[in-house]
Amino acid sequence: MATPLSGKPAPGRVALLAGGVGGARMAEGLARVLPAGALTVIANVGDDERFYGLHVSPDIDTLIYTLSDRIDRAQGWGVRDDTVRALDVLRDLGAPTWMKLGDADFGLHIWRSWRLSQGASLSEVTEAAAERLGARARVLPATDDPLRTRLLTDRGWMDFQPWFVGQRCAPRVEALAYEGAAAATAAPQALDAITRAELIVIAPSNPLLSIEPILAVPGLRAAIEAAAAPVIAVSPLIGGKAVKGPLARLIADLGLEPGAAGIAARYGGLIDGFAVHESDEADIARVRASGMAVLAADILMPGPEAAERLARALLAFAPQLSRRRGGAAS
Amino acid sequence: MATPLSGKPAPGRVALLAGGVGGARMAEGLARVLPAGALTVIANVGDDERFYGLHVSPDIDTLIYTLSDRIDRAQGWGVRDDTVRALDVLRDLGAPTWMKLGDADFGLHIWRSWRLSQGASLSEVTEAAAERLGARARVLPATDDPLRTRLLTDRGWMDFQPWFVGQRCAPRVEALAYEGAAAATAAPQALDAITRAELIVIAPSNPLLSIEPILAVPGLRAAIEAAAAPVIAVSPLIGGKAVKGPLARLIADLGLEPGAAGIAARYGGLIDGFAVHESDEADIARVRASGMAVLAADILMPGPEAAERLARALLAFAPQLSRRRGGAAS
Repeated sequence: MATPLSGKPAPGRVALLAGGVGGARMAEGLARVLPAGALTVIANVGDDERFYGLHVSPDIDTLIYTLSDRIDRAQGWGVRDDTVRALDVLRDLGAPTWMKLGDADFGLHIWRSWRLSQGASLSEVTEAAAERLGARARVLPATDDPLRTRLLTDRGWMDFQPWFVGQRCAPRVEALAYEGAAAATAAPQALDAITRAELIVIAPSNPLLSIEPILAVPGLRAAIEAAAAPVIAVSPLIGGKAVKGPLARLIADLGLEPGAAGIAARYGGLIDGFAVHESDEADIARVRASGMAVLAADILMPGPEAAERLARALLAFAPQLSRRRGGAAS
Repeated sequence: MATPLSGKPAPGRVALLAGGVGGARMAEGLARVLPAGALTVIANVGDDERFYGLHVSPDIDTLIYTLSDRIDRAQGWGVRDDTVRALDVLRDLGAPTWMKLGDADFGLHIWRSWRLSQGASLSEVTEAAAERLGARARVLPATDDPLRTRLLTDRGWMDFQPWFVGQRCAPRVEALAYEGAAAATAAPQALDAITRAELIVIAPSNPLLSIEPILAVPGLRAAIEAAAAPVIAVSPLIGGKAVKGPLARLIADLGLEPGAAGIAARYGGLIDGFAVHESDEADIARVRASGMAVLAADILMPGPEAAERLARALLAFAPQLSRRRGGAAS
């Protein structure tokens, strides 16, 4: 799709950068609106962890379960009505069981680990799992290489899942690192989806824990900067608070600029437009003052209908955007 | 325990060589009669197989589930009331699912595979699993090394589980091989249990598929031959038929000597006494004629009470035995 970007019909192919719960909700909304095959979700793998030797990809799993309508909607992750018989046996055997892995869930982890051990890439495994489980979008990892979000806390360096699930975010965070990112290669399938997209959306996922681990993969940020498509980010903060997860807490711990406008500034030269909750008037004014196009809307997605509404608003907003990113307004 | 073996009190420490279902029943009977800690079961690992990269030990699992009262008594294997949510997902993902692995079952397979990948031996893993899951006996593999029973069939060489479960024993068997046995080392814990036993029992398991893979491990047969304890085998055939499993079929396929007396002859110089069903009168006469001590009893074990009765009969029979094995009657 050639510049200028304005005055065009609504985009067809969409690439969505996403973490877990918020990303999955956004993906579901877009999948309901776009034609089959039009949406590709590029998922964070910084939260991936090995449990009992099995490769668990929490964000990818949440995306696949949401997009295949298997998700436990009440908690936002895991398989609906899943049981924990395997986990109960692991507990009896003396294994640590603070990560609640359900029985159906284990089926996916076993299969993923098996296929990886046979030499399949995480991209191949993820794409096949999404397709075979009936996800209504393509799901891909940002990279096939190991990349782990680690947190320097007042108790020392911790892996993400032990901090997030094991310790319920209790340890204060002093710094973040995306271990392995510098040495990682962007997955070719993910790069291709970015290049071919007619719209790139950054989901209202945690920038520090979900989006920036994706952008930290060499070549991925550059591919977005170079892409023909406009880029829109959806604010993960409403009224300064995260709908779910520890974002506001991390912003405070790390002394970062708070609120939706702070997020827009953080994404800075990477995006052409920013979707903010309509009630965040001060943020809207500040982002507009920075020269960025703003979509002021009800960005809260309590369910699939709200997500669909937001998806439609984004698709209508996209053709109005001028290329701004890379520091130069078009 | 010194020879002569007769005139002694009933043995305390018992080592049981066992396969799956019949072996587990015998183990349960002995466990009900013996003091806590007195029974060690040495299990066949020739049926072990990897499913989805996980190490499954069907005979060990059946022993542990039976001895911890988790077993599905109707089918004789697997965990009672187990569900198959993980397997359903694996099927959705396109994996072969002819081996029915339940969710609780997967908990054990995941743990075993994880501990093995961390460098634990199969003996350590098996002994710990049995203890932590509450098995009323020590359970050990014959060897920590890979040993796989393979079958030369009219469709070529097959692994055991694909033949037994996948093809329901349909392919005609022309030969058997215990792959890896010659290079395997007997597990020190198993050897120690044999050496320290006051009675060694060969369970009414399939000699070809369960007991001989154990005996094929170098050092294990010799340890039994050298052990101070008397050795009793229980016939796996009643009226020429196996209570469960494909033994009679294999005997016919391979042209071996049929019936209980055929089994006694096959164990030949390894045993001092043989337990036969009381109705197998011709077999009783033939075994006695060979000079071997015979316990004629109701060896059918439809439930734990019958198994306990047989265990008591074996323990009462043992002190009457003279050392016969090694070819020389004492």
